[in-house]
Amino acid sequence: MLGINRQWKLATRPHGLITPDVLQLSESPIPTLQDGQALGRVKYISIDPTMRVWMADVPQYMPPVPIGEVMRAFGLAEVIDSRRSDFKKGDKLSGLTGLQDFVPIDGKNTHSFQKVPNIPFLSDTNFLSILGVNGLTAYFGLLEIGKPQSGETLVVSAAAGATGSIVGQLGKIHGCRVVGIAGTDEKCKWIKEDLGFDAAINYKHPDWKAQLAAATPKGVDINFENVGGEIMQAVLNRMNLHGRVVLCGLISGYTTEAPSMASFDQLIIKRLRVEGFLILDYVSKFMDAGKQLGMWKMTGKLKDRQTLVQGLEKAPEAINMLFRGDNIGKLILEP
Amino acid sequence: MLGINRQWKLATRPHGLITPDVLQLSESPIPTLQDGQALGRVKYISIDPTMRVWMADVPQYMPPVPIGEVMRAFGLAEVIDSRRSDFKKGDKLSGLTGLQDFVPIDGKNTHSFQKVPNIPFLSDTNFLSILGVNGLTAYFGLLEIGKPQSGETLVVSAAAGATGSIVGQLGKIHGCRVVGIAGTDEKCKWIKEDLGFDAAINYKHPDWKAQLAAATPKGVDINFENVGGEIMQAVLNRMNLHGRVVLCGLISGYTTEAPSMASFDQLIIKRLRVEGFLILDYVSKFMDAGKQLGMWKMTGKLKDRQTLVQGLEKAPEAINMLFRGDNIGKLILEP
Repeated sequence: MLGINRQWKLATRPHGLITPDVLQLSESPIPTLQDGQALGRVKYISIDPTMRVWMADVPQYMPPVPIGEVMRAFGLAEVIDSRRSDFKKGDKLSGLTGLQDFVPIDGKNTHSFQKVPNIPFLSDTNFLSILGVNGLTAYFGLLEIGKPQSGETLVVSAAAGATGSIVGQLGKIHGCRVVGIAGTDEKCKWIKEDLGFDAAINYKHPDWKAQLAAATPKGVDINFENVGGEIMQAVLNRMNLHGRVVLCGLISGYTTEAPSMASFDQLIIKRLRVEGFLILDYVSKFMDAGKQLGMWKMTGKLKDRQTLVQGLEKAPEAINMLFRGDNIGKLILEP
Repeated sequence: MLGINRQWKLATRPHGLITPDVLQLSESPIPTLQDGQALGRVKYISIDPTMRVWMADVPQYMPPVPIGEVMRAFGLAEVIDSRRSDFKKGDKLSGLTGLQDFVPIDGKNTHSFQKVPNIPFLSDTNFLSILGVNGLTAYFGLLEIGKPQSGETLVVSAAAGATGSIVGQLGKIHGCRVVGIAGTDEKCKWIKEDLGFDAAINYKHPDWKAQLAAATPKGVDINFENVGGEIMQAVLNRMNLHGRVVLCGLISGYTTEAPSMASFDQLIIKRLRVEGFLILDYVSKFMDAGKQLGMWKMTGKLKDRQTLVQGLEKAPEAINMLFRGDNIGKLILEP
């Protein structure tokens, strides 16, 4: 026996933010490995808005996490013991590690794991952000759904988040005028000065809609939407005829009882196309996208930033940080 | 001078339904024709939801009708006098006649008019419905945006309306299972028994959402949406992965101060595409579409029905009928 495995289990479904009753920290011995199993020590856990959706008993793209089960999470684990031939001690794997210290990898969850290669200039955490779900989401959402053309104007919401910050940089690579919307001046400064966005707008400033209009003098051709509600509505009002809305997330509604609503009116007037997507539909293209993203990262065309939270016990607080907008770039929990 | 021209002028912008202060009936002499003008007597006026939008001072695809001007309307006029070479006495023209008895046709509005041919089995009013804006809207919306495949399930809202009733029949022609949503049992009976819809659901019945579920056992692949709000939301909840929403109208919001809202959540979960459209974008294909629609009408594959209101003085009431759902099929005012 290797010691104790701390696990966050879903105790009850949340209303609003993650209150202390929602997740329960339990301790159990690490099980002895069976043939066909490997044991991973979880090194990094990706904290994502989708975790709040997984907690809710609503229709979604994966089943909600059952009450009493270890909370689902994407992360990076290092194999510390193995009784299977494909994964050996020392291998690093990314996949659905769960919100815990150790994860057994066997027939039940193997499909979610893949080996993380050692590549110069790429850190382990890059495989949870630029080369992970966020990078792939930005890549397929912008390129396959948004179809950016040089000279077009792209507006990204949650622009200093893990996905939004990559979307904006991909927009610049493809010749767009890129405007980001974020919730603090510090975030705006980062995306404008470090990431090269053409403009950044703090939606907490009273005149932010006038700023958005001024920053999009030719209107908006593509909206990469991560937030929904009032922010999405303001961008829809600036869209050009035949514009495209890449609907990636609606975080403004994830912690409320009622979903965030918006009007579809502008879609008719301006003949807009709004398309939801999930990277699940692009699995066959992951390898090519990963290579491209890795090249851009290694050559400095894509920059990233992380907000690290240390200590598995801080998981509920880390999830709430996302919804309060307390992170810049990728939010990662280090157990 | 030929007599008196009654004209409905926009006196003030409406809130909700058309109250007596919104439109003002005025009388003026019919002007003497100038060179380059023709005079049309308005025979039929198409009563459309878009008229309510034209009255409002909101961003839209045409400028709002200015206060004090004759209310914009699409209609059919017969030329009774002409001092131009292209339109001669007896010609029938469809175009923006306005809400009045007589319309002078000159350089200012000529672009909106075209000659209505005399074709066996096609009535004048067909050119305001199946062969007019409604037919073209149904045709391009369903075929170009919805892209129906044989065996798919199509749900149409406002299904007994001028556009919805054609959409459903086009869906049947293309091999879809077609489910219509309407607001009275009489409408449901008509679209099911006379038009051949597979199912019809009265959304005023308390259990209509359960009926919708029962009528769409394989989910919904295409939603041709004319209503918005709660009805649209219920259909979105039934959509299949990668479904298409043809966003044609949102009549539920046209007579309210606030636009009808709905949640975009389902768009992500199910990777839906919602696309607004206007037939203005398909002008170059109007002739081909008209020929096809005419053939289907003449061979009995497309049926239509009209609700005729007689007397120009009843125009405000006729417009309100639309929003109360008092019409079946095409609502036409006969001045």
